[in-house]
Amino acid sequence: MYADLDLDRTARRGYPEAVYCAGKTPAQVAGIAATVRGRPDVITLFTRAEPEHAAAVLAELPDARHDADAGLLAWPPTPPTPAGGLVVVVAAGTSDLRYAREAKLTARYLGRPTELVVDVGVAGLHRILGHLELLRRARVVVVAAGMDGALPSVVAGLIAAPVVALPTSVGYGAAFGGLAPLLAMLNACAPGVAVVNIDNGYGAGHLAAQIAADPPAADRP
Amino acid sequence: MYADLDLDRTARRGYPEAVYCAGKTPAQVAGIAATVRGRPDVITLFTRAEPEHAAAVLAELPDARHDADAGLLAWPPTPPTPAGGLVVVVAAGTSDLRYAREAKLTARYLGRPTELVVDVGVAGLHRILGHLELLRRARVVVVAAGMDGALPSVVAGLIAAPVVALPTSVGYGAAFGGLAPLLAMLNACAPGVAVVNIDNGYGAGHLAAQIAADPPAADRP
Amino acid sequence: MYADLDLDRTARRGYPEAVYCAGKTPAQVAGIAATVRGRPDVITLFTRAEPEHAAAVLAELPDARHDADAGLLAWPPTPPTPAGGLVVVVAAGTSDLRYAREAKLTARYLGRPTELVVDVGVAGLHRILGHLELLRRARVVVVAAGMDGALPSVVAGLIAAPVVALPTSVGYGAAFGGLAPLLAMLNACAPGVAVVNIDNGYGAGHLAAQIAADPPAADRP
Amino acid sequence: MYADLDLDRTARRGYPEAVYCAGKTPAQVAGIAATVRGRPDVITLFTRAEPEHAAAVLAELPDARHDADAGLLAWPPTPPTPAGGLVVVVAAGTSDLRYAREAKLTARYLGRPTELVVDVGVAGLHRILGHLELLRRARVVVVAAGMDGALPSVVAGLIAAPVVALPTSVGYGAAFGGLAPLLAMLNACAPGVAVVNIDNGYGAGHLAAQIAADPPAADRP
Amino acid sequence: MYADLDLDRTARRGYPEAVYCAGKTPAQVAGIAATVRGRPDVITLFTRAEPEHAAAVLAELPDARHDADAGLLAWPPTPPTPAGGLVVVVAAGTSDLRYAREAKLTARYLGRPTELVVDVGVAGLHRILGHLELLRRARVVVVAAGMDGALPSVVAGLIAAPVVALPTSVGYGAAFGGLAPLLAMLNACAPGVAVVNIDNGYGAGHLAAQIAADPPAADRP
Amino acid sequence: MYADLDLDRTARRGYPEAVYCAGKTPAQVAGIAATVRGRPDVITLFTRAEPEHAAAVLAELPDARHDADAGLLAWPPTPPTPAGGLVVVVAAGTSDLRYAREAKLTARYLGRPTELVVDVGVAGLHRILGHLELLRRARVVVVAAGMDGALPSVVAGLIAAPVVALPTSVGYGAAFGGLAPLLAMLNACAPGVAVVNIDNGYGAGHLAAQIAADPPAADRP
Amino acid sequence: MYADLDLDRTARRGYPEAVYCAGKTPAQVAGIAATVRGRPDVITLFTRAEPEHAAAVLAELPDARHDADAGLLAWPPTPPTPAGGLVVVVAAGTSDLRYAREAKLTARYLGRPTELVVDVGVAGLHRILGHLELLRRARVVVVAAGMDGALPSVVAGLIAAPVVALPTSVGYGAAFGGLAPLLAMLNACAPGVAVVNIDNGYGAGHLAAQIAADPPAADRP
Amino acid sequence: MYADLDLDRTARRGYPEAVYCAGKTPAQVAGIAATVRGRPDVITLFTRAEPEHAAAVLAELPDARHDADAGLLAWPPTPPTPAGGLVVVVAAGTSDLRYAREAKLTARYLGRPTELVVDVGVAGLHRILGHLELLRRARVVVVAAGMDGALPSVVAGLIAAPVVALPTSVGYGAAFGGLAPLLAMLNACAPGVAVVNIDNGYGAGHLAAQIAADPPAADRP
Repeated sequence: MYADLDLDRTARRGYPEAVYCAGKTPAQVAGIAATVRGRPDVITLFTRAEPEHAAAVLAELPDARHDADAGLLAWPPTPPTPAGGLVVVVAAGTSDLRYAREAKLTARYLGRPTELVVDVGVAGLHRILGHLELLRRARVVVVAAGMDGALPSVVAGLIAAPVVALPTSVGYGAAFGGLAPLLAMLNACAPGVAVVNIDNGYGAGHLAAQIAADPPAADRP
Repeated sequence: MYADLDLDRTARRGYPEAVYCAGKTPAQVAGIAATVRGRPDVITLFTRAEPEHAAAVLAELPDARHDADAGLLAWPPTPPTPAGGLVVVVAAGTSDLRYAREAKLTARYLGRPTELVVDVGVAGLHRILGHLELLRRARVVVVAAGMDGALPSVVAGLIAAPVVALPTSVGYGAAFGGLAPLLAMLNACAPGVAVVNIDNGYGAGHLAAQIAADPPAADRP
Repeated sequence: MYADLDLDRTARRGYPEAVYCAGKTPAQVAGIAATVRGRPDVITLFTRAEPEHAAAVLAELPDARHDADAGLLAWPPTPPTPAGGLVVVVAAGTSDLRYAREAKLTARYLGRPTELVVDVGVAGLHRILGHLELLRRARVVVVAAGMDGALPSVVAGLIAAPVVALPTSVGYGAAFGGLAPLLAMLNACAPGVAVVNIDNGYGAGHLAAQIAADPPAADRP
Repeated sequence: MYADLDLDRTARRGYPEAVYCAGKTPAQVAGIAATVRGRPDVITLFTRAEPEHAAAVLAELPDARHDADAGLLAWPPTPPTPAGGLVVVVAAGTSDLRYAREAKLTARYLGRPTELVVDVGVAGLHRILGHLELLRRARVVVVAAGMDGALPSVVAGLIAAPVVALPTSVGYGAAFGGLAPLLAMLNACAPGVAVVNIDNGYGAGHLAAQIAADPPAADRP
Repeated sequence: MYADLDLDRTARRGYPEAVYCAGKTPAQVAGIAATVRGRPDVITLFTRAEPEHAAAVLAELPDARHDADAGLLAWPPTPPTPAGGLVVVVAAGTSDLRYAREAKLTARYLGRPTELVVDVGVAGLHRILGHLELLRRARVVVVAAGMDGALPSVVAGLIAAPVVALPTSVGYGAAFGGLAPLLAMLNACAPGVAVVNIDNGYGAGHLAAQIAADPPAADRP
Repeated sequence: MYADLDLDRTARRGYPEAVYCAGKTPAQVAGIAATVRGRPDVITLFTRAEPEHAAAVLAELPDARHDADAGLLAWPPTPPTPAGGLVVVVAAGTSDLRYAREAKLTARYLGRPTELVVDVGVAGLHRILGHLELLRRARVVVVAAGMDGALPSVVAGLIAAPVVALPTSVGYGAAFGGLAPLLAMLNACAPGVAVVNIDNGYGAGHLAAQIAADPPAADRP
Repeated sequence: MYADLDLDRTARRGYPEAVYCAGKTPAQVAGIAATVRGRPDVITLFTRAEPEHAAAVLAELPDARHDADAGLLAWPPTPPTPAGGLVVVVAAGTSDLRYAREAKLTARYLGRPTELVVDVGVAGLHRILGHLELLRRARVVVVAAGMDGALPSVVAGLIAAPVVALPTSVGYGAAFGGLAPLLAMLNACAPGVAVVNIDNGYGAGHLAAQIAADPPAADRP
Repeated sequence: MYADLDLDRTARRGYPEAVYCAGKTPAQVAGIAATVRGRPDVITLFTRAEPEHAAAVLAELPDARHDADAGLLAWPPTPPTPAGGLVVVVAAGTSDLRYAREAKLTARYLGRPTELVVDVGVAGLHRILGHLELLRRARVVVVAAGMDGALPSVVAGLIAAPVVALPTSVGYGAAFGGLAPLLAMLNACAPGVAVVNIDNGYGAGHLAAQIAADPPAADRP
């Protein structure tokens, strides 16, 4: 057997496990999808799904939701009723959109209410400033940015909530596949910036969903 | 004038600004400390303070709390009454302790209750497993680790709360000043890991304090 | 002549030489295979064989064993009778499986008994802990892992035998083609970790076979 | 002879040559200073002067202007009458000040009018926005920043003049000695950003002076 | 909506915004082109346009100028009347030509007079010296070079005007995708070199256009 | 408490834990040494001990063995009776000697018989070939080398036993602190090379001791 | 015009210029080939020629010699009468052969006598030692090697003539596209090693031809 | 014994072995010097000698020649009668002088006639062009340069003899300890450039001496 899916992870950690498709054969992904079918009580996400992975999943789970841009499938297709604080996802440019969508969908399927804001890079500050009210309503903001990775610093300086910084591999040569924004985000001059891996929209969305979860009743003021 | 301290930042963002001493002359730090003296309503942290920076601060603010190991000074010296969720700070080894302390103190001065756990590296899993009950009570766990940076993955796999991963520059040659644990943490195989800069205990503590803050009343279930 | 195959290497070092196909033309590989045909007393491995390399080998040695996932061919196809200590090969995730298989097959064709364990990443510690009895029976354990490369540290902390750490190029952007797990493994906080090159399942299996060889009679207690 | 000073460079290029002291012995620097003494018609700058270099220069040229923070000496000490457009130099934080001063002094000794603005990092946007009128009066703006290197993008988005981006080695571990802001500046999402070497205040000031020079009369509208 | 085009940027900054096509779908680019059609008073550039992007633009703006080598489209197709100083663009080798053309076209569409010089690498100094008179007439020179990136240093040493250095990804293995010339240019031993991102001809041309702009009348001698 | 020493590790893994002194204060190291004093049944190693660490250990454990070159202390001072196969440690040059000694002492205190060979770099092949008989008697060979790191490949090609390759930080600029030999060793063209961290003599010796341990009686032919 | 071919280079430097095809369009290469046709007195090499470049050259110069493996064309096709010392080219493995051939052909067309030796990696020292007599007859030896890049050190230690080390991009992950052998060669522990760029067989052959040239008569003993 | 000096190397390779002092204790160096005393027929060089190394050598060999700037000692102190072709050593700037001197002295003690040229960087081309006649008389030219490492390309384009390029660690931040000129030199756009390690003046001088050696009589035209 090539996979030992951790279906009780929801019980243990409170969040479902995702199936990372990259590096798996479509047959392996199909086998996992078949296993999942017996557990409609648990939402399963398939991330980094190329078209052939998606086809393999849909053959087993025809009603799965498939977002091709984000390379994501979710089954069962209906996300949970929103609970917890608002997750706002911001894409610096259109080219960052696919990763921003992956983050937004992940947070939504993990149970949070979500909003998406696009094309608000720091080269035109009026754009991001125009969304200040929404940003200040969020319990966490995910900021996807390539190139100089400057937007998370700016957003973190404007709000009290934490920022999840998602570097993307968008940019010219010296972006070095996302290294430039990754380093910029790790060095954000405003505190409150949590960095995840390059192009890892799933990780950003998952982390945001955890941060925006309501505290357990016993732990509330 | 060489600095334009943002004393209203507490009002705007809800958290005080810190003074990053590295790269400043003691005279510059003293000048900032003198400015701060008039604002006892705001807690100011001085981070990365070498002994000569600390002396400069203490000359202006003699009752400031000084933690020499962590390179941190706080004034006024009494932290706020704890509020919000528990922040647990974990140091993989004794050599990571100074950064873990910086994180713990920062979170405490930003208002959270905090606990510290030391010497629980993954080479002896029974150590971290022995603290499982405490870890599961935390609203966020900060994990400071050098070398292989493996501990945040392990901790994130055990709890539902998010983990702030703090890579340290501890280790042999190919740790490359913290690059090895930094990369490991960015690639954590468990979701829910928020990475900050190498040796940046202040940043880890600040982020943890934000995550563990209670949601505003209007945003609560 | 473009290759000077070292067929007496078995006599000299005790292990056959492998033919590394990457960077060779199929015609060159076929030529080597033809040479090998006259030496059925020596097992030859063809590693990193793309389909066109495999076809070239099979045209000369039709009964060679071909494991397409692992990119490996072996001829003669029957491995030696197992001798020496047990080699356990562990794959952290399904995506690491191809390299784990390459390691397992190499160790097996070099004469060791082998076992394979899959999908036991550190994000769910109960998985690896469930195989503890098997791990402790091994004379050496090969651990293939991408992403954070944390599993070798954890395994090395649980057993007395050495661990061969095999970093794989599996992961998101900041894995940098296997650099992240490679560095993590070199910095393993548990001693007893022997690192090989990224994705080099052949090298890991060969090293494991050497470590698990029985000492010569003259060198035994 | 260990140096072949290009004193006619002023005539040829229009700007004096600087003496880069790092890596030279004080005796070598003194020798160069002695040569310079005979040419008061040409301004000579000594950059990266450690205290022992400065002493060597001052022994030969006692009235040279010495800015110890910036590691710069100028002789003759009086800068030229200002000509050309205004050069505004901006330091993101106090720790960037020494490089900003080096840039400002260089541009001033090369004949431009200059202004300095300090402590206007992007974590508090209101700071830089408060200097917008001055920034828009500049013919070129030099922006010195370490950490995330985000400020040049923001400034370039606000003005029509070009920005000279000066990365500094200020910051925590993953700033990697200025690599992080360097890459961020090279990837600035706003066009119009000219990058120079890390901590190279002299180079930034020189480039700014060239950009802000008045076009030759023959080349004017 | 996936993009929030900043059409008033011309008014605010004095230069039009460009649409960076890489990472955008043709449909997204077409949508932006449709928006642009209503604003013939503003020149819009589409950069890094693959053939499918170009087709999408041309479907909406059939008379757009398309330079396939440079991956650039401009609409409206007629550049402004030349104003300001001359921009000379130099390509070290034929392989650098596409990026040099992108720089030249950008500067031209932003309103400057431009000239192009090709195949003048430092391995044959007589080539570049043969263009000295033209180089000295320029108000700024853009130098595109891969490999050793040595040409900007040489050119900067010959003229009084600033040099915009454009590293290209041309070269053998250890050019590392343009890293070698990028570092060489950042370390140019002649002052007056402004570096932009690898292969970023658009950025080089834009910066050159800004530098060569005539000073506003109020700011002129 | 700043450390939770794992004194039962000997029972669990069969080898004592070492105390890594780098990054610990002398007071912390002294505290650990005091704890150790009550357990003379377990050998404890103190590695990377600077003189002040050594003094702190010796104050608590006056009869500890101290090898200042190797930065190592051992207590109790008498190593165990040799058992298992021979560990031969090879230092390519005199400058690698300190790390080779650290490896040899570690293997010896972990119970193996050991031999040391010095100054046998590949620039004079006759040197290493002159030790062939000894190398072939070893059950494992540790090879410490800086610069080009070529020696492990050569040794591995000469013997049947595995080689532990220990890269050192010895060398000119482009050795990059041991990166050059580290990469060379990971890419050894002879199989059977197990790589450890740069300058990590302790790790090399520990791994060698594990490899050279006699198989348990139940696991012997 | 896109190229300014330096046909007088033979006269000036004594060696013909090569046309580097990578990054040029077939049409550009064809144009250069057409220019060359009028100068049969000068040998021109076309390097890094992909099949479409080769076709373009052969359309203009049908009798050009084309070595497809080496990606090289030469015209006129007959090399000069051999003169100067012997150039021996050594390929560590079969996968390095294409670059070794490029070096050998280049040296031959530049006028030297040449020999080729293949598959003599350091994992089997007897192979290279078997060619010692030939190696000692050479006036310079070119050594092409990937992986650990150890062969140049070994060869340099065996002979009095200089070694040109040619790193190749052959190898597993941590070879990082030739970086590993490049660094190893730069750090060769035997003096007398001249390093060229990764996979740059042309450069290696050219340098070897220069080194092996007979001194001018006036400069001879 | 910690060193096995290869005193017969002169006989075997034709050149004496050097003692690399860095990383050796003064006592170890003294021991080697004592051994050398008995062999006045062989010249021994001590490289990278810090003052304490030099003192140790001079205590054993009081008449050794010591060049403190170059960190070099030679014994016996008188170099051989010059033979072979001229070695010209060029230092781009004064800061490169120490490495240029190390190269010059090494070549001289290995028997070549040598000349030194200083301060001829490419920022002022007239300087290097002024030495053209001398450069063209050399059988090999060593070029030491830091910063952009552009000078070897320029020199190689001017002469027929090979160039040994010696990168130095001189420069601002993004020189990264000599990485920038190293990469530039490996990517030199003029063929005929042989690169050695950063700051490795000894290696450059040794290689130059080998290249400039007269061919053996039997191998002469």
